Amino acid sequence: MTKRAVVLLSGGLDSATALYWAGKRGYRTSALTVDYGQRHRRELESARRLARAAGADLTTLSLDLPWLPDSTSLVGGSKPLPDIPVGRIGRNGIPSTYVPGRNTVFLSLALSFADARDAQAIVIGANTLDSSGYPDCRPAYLRAFEKAARLGSRAGVQQRPFRILAPLLRLDKKGIVKLATRLGVPLEKTWSCYRGGDTPCRRCDSCKLRAKGFNEAAQKDPLVH
Amino acid sequence: MTKRAVVLLSGGLDSATALYWAGKRGYRTSALTVDYGQRHRRELESARRLARAAGADLTTLSLDLPWLPDSTSLVGGSKPLPDIPVGRIGRNGIPSTYVPGRNTVFLSLALSFADARDAQAIVIGANTLDSSGYPDCRPAYLRAFEKAARLGSRAGVQQRPFRILAPLLRLDKKGIVKLATRLGVPLEKTWSCYRGGDTPCRRCDSCKLRAKGFNEAAQKDPLVH
Repeated sequence: MTKRAVVLLSGGLDSATALYWAGKRGYRTSALTVDYGQRHRRELESARRLARAAGADLTTLSLDLPWLPDSTSLVGGSKPLPDIPVGRIGRNGIPSTYVPGRNTVFLSLALSFADARDAQAIVIGANTLDSSGYPDCRPAYLRAFEKAARLGSRAGVQQRPFRILAPLLRLDKKGIVKLATRLGVPLEKTWSCYRGGDTPCRRCDSCKLRAKGFNEAAQKDPLVH
Repeated sequence: MTKRAVVLLSGGLDSATALYWAGKRGYRTSALTVDYGQRHRRELESARRLARAAGADLTTLSLDLPWLPDSTSLVGGSKPLPDIPVGRIGRNGIPSTYVPGRNTVFLSLALSFADARDAQAIVIGANTLDSSGYPDCRPAYLRAFEKAARLGSRAGVQQRPFRILAPLLRLDKKGIVKLATRLGVPLEKTWSCYRGGDTPCRRCDSCKLRAKGFNEAAQKDPLVH
């Protein structure tokens, strides 16, 4: 029987790696992308290109949450993006790039999709090391959500196997770059920069973490010239 | 300090009662309604009228989940609504009116809203007795979601109080009708029928459960003439 997984795909390095990981594990993958008005809408195009390259079907949802522009610097233009030295990312509490409840919203949409399609797993590229201090990337959170997802779904009631898989959870960015390379992720198709211009800004948290990963893995980032 | 709560308001009897309950408990209430393409879109207008009557601000979100039409009889016209004798509702497994992951999606949207606005609670009208056999109305599910919500939010990390409140969870429909009456819920503004015509169909699960509640409470349903 074909195993099916719904993969949350933002178009960034981490979710692209998660998508290829799931394919390698033998899952037939359905990618789910959410347009929530993020500044870096360019990642949506990256998600399309990555899904195509991986042979996954892609569903893009549009979500207009009117409270986001004044509660995160990732949506709307009213809050500036932070510019924190890389060693301090995640050390000063929750940064302004935190999108309230984002992973819970994304995982719940993936749960609805997975339960409708009898998929056995949701795959998410969350990672807790070298992450930006987001509460919804912590292992205990993901375990708790998995439990709720089982209890609140058809899969759980019918006692079919159902997992939330976060294969990058305990990897640092260096480890993610290495894993991505091993899995053949087309790194030039990924997009990480929060600013979403024509080229990565190299100043936002996401650019800095990505640069750290490529540097430590002694690899060249194909997006940086 | 004002306590704030986000209340999931569908426009039905249960969520209207939950909204008035929260107001009575001293919460300043923000109602959240989701248009997910339900057949009974008439309930969206009921939600507007109920929020206005209760003095709650109302946010209506639109959510287009392309997998719903072929996975629930509540969305699209391809699956017929069931017509089950009232005593057997919820006894034959999960009915076709189950919307995959619906409460998880709704609660996660409410969590995002609550975390953005520093609300202390989410209020949901879920009930497990006289419910339709939906997995995401069970007490253990709600407890598990509450735990995930705390772990995955700013409120939880900052150790501020945060609850998922389901005041109707262990009430039967009779008890809900009585509580609604005691709280002064304008019952004529609520809408329960899944068919969403001009008058309740009196045949769908939701109409039957509502009729049972009013009958057992020895009250007249203002929607039924």
